[in-house]
Amino acid sequence: MTRANGALALVHHPVLDRTGGVVATAVTPLDVHDLARLAATYGLGGLYVVTPLRAQTELLERLLRHWVQGAGGRANPWRRRALEGVRLVSGLDKAVADLGARWGGRPWVLATSARREGDRVGFGEARQRLDGPGAGCLVVFGTGWGLAPEAYEACDDVLEPVDAGFGYNHLSVRSAASIVVDRLFGVRAPPAPGRDRHG
Amino acid sequence: MTRANGALALVHHPVLDRTGGVVATAVTPLDVHDLARLAATYGLGGLYVVTPLRAQTELLERLLRHWVQGAGGRANPWRRRALEGVRLVSGLDKAVADLGARWGGRPWVLATSARREGDRVGFGEARQRLDGPGAGCLVVFGTGWGLAPEAYEACDDVLEPVDAGFGYNHLSVRSAASIVVDRLFGVRAPPAPGRDRHG
Repeated sequence: MTRANGALALVHHPVLDRTGGVVATAVTPLDVHDLARLAATYGLGGLYVVTPLRAQTELLERLLRHWVQGAGGRANPWRRRALEGVRLVSGLDKAVADLGARWGGRPWVLATSARREGDRVGFGEARQRLDGPGAGCLVVFGTGWGLAPEAYEACDDVLEPVDAGFGYNHLSVRSAASIVVDRLFGVRAPPAPGRDRHG
Repeated sequence: MTRANGALALVHHPVLDRTGGVVATAVTPLDVHDLARLAATYGLGGLYVVTPLRAQTELLERLLRHWVQGAGGRANPWRRRALEGVRLVSGLDKAVADLGARWGGRPWVLATSARREGDRVGFGEARQRLDGPGAGCLVVFGTGWGLAPEAYEACDDVLEPVDAGFGYNHLSVRSAASIVVDRLFGVRAPPAPGRDRHG
């Protein structure tokens, strides 16, 4: 039941803080739950949670034990199924290497951004590429104030932002990831006739 | 800059608990932030937070004071702009009446559900209706284990679930709301040529 051509990475380092400094953010358990459930819904190959911090990794290991082997998962098997797809890695390169080994080929590493400046791959273009041959795509999301330049350097391309055209582009990572995954991997109804669309 | 034909309601009563009983859930501040930011991104007419519980309303009023009039909003004007669109009401009927007064006509009250059984309005059909004349749409989301039957009775129609076809349909309300809003109100790229789509 797993669609093999997509997986998610949630990066906690290197990301920016509000002043533009490079930091490691704390892992938010709710983000892990939301993105793991999202990956399960769209049949993706799981979620890589990226943090180099040992204390954060231990927190996550405890969370996963509770939901995958422990009482949480027994009480809520759906949540267990989602969290079974979570992998902890110390860096984005580790996620790319692990996914490459699982898929038998380096994934297309696609960063996301709330900013429009620079070369951006459109959603339609990305969907077309995902329909073609290739190992599949790792979609990379930053926490804090977004991925740091070093993280972008480890990615192949940057996806265009989710922007509805109202001058407000400050979605939570939970919302942005949900919309990006639906646009890239969701089944789409054909456009209603006569509707004015662009993008 | 506000697109007047949509607004969101997040219902904390009447909703179901895991046993199917009708309960009032606690308000999760993060849900309010995420859905308010989502509404702002898509130019919607704000978010109604529905709870009849006085203690919950007081908590929310404190949260809104911090972000709209207080230090939170001064430090983060984007967050202030999103939370300015939040309205607290004691029942879904109050949200419908308030929106009807603001828009000069009763909105189309569209419930959401994770279940496919029963009459469901498709996303394409809903978009077509939103393009036509009418006062606009209030999209209603339940917390807990979903809207209770009494809540559905107060709605005009029920939208089809977000379901990617992998047998897993357990998104967070934050993810589901984000995807629903993007599908109903987002600007869409035309489908890539030759891609097999249905829905």
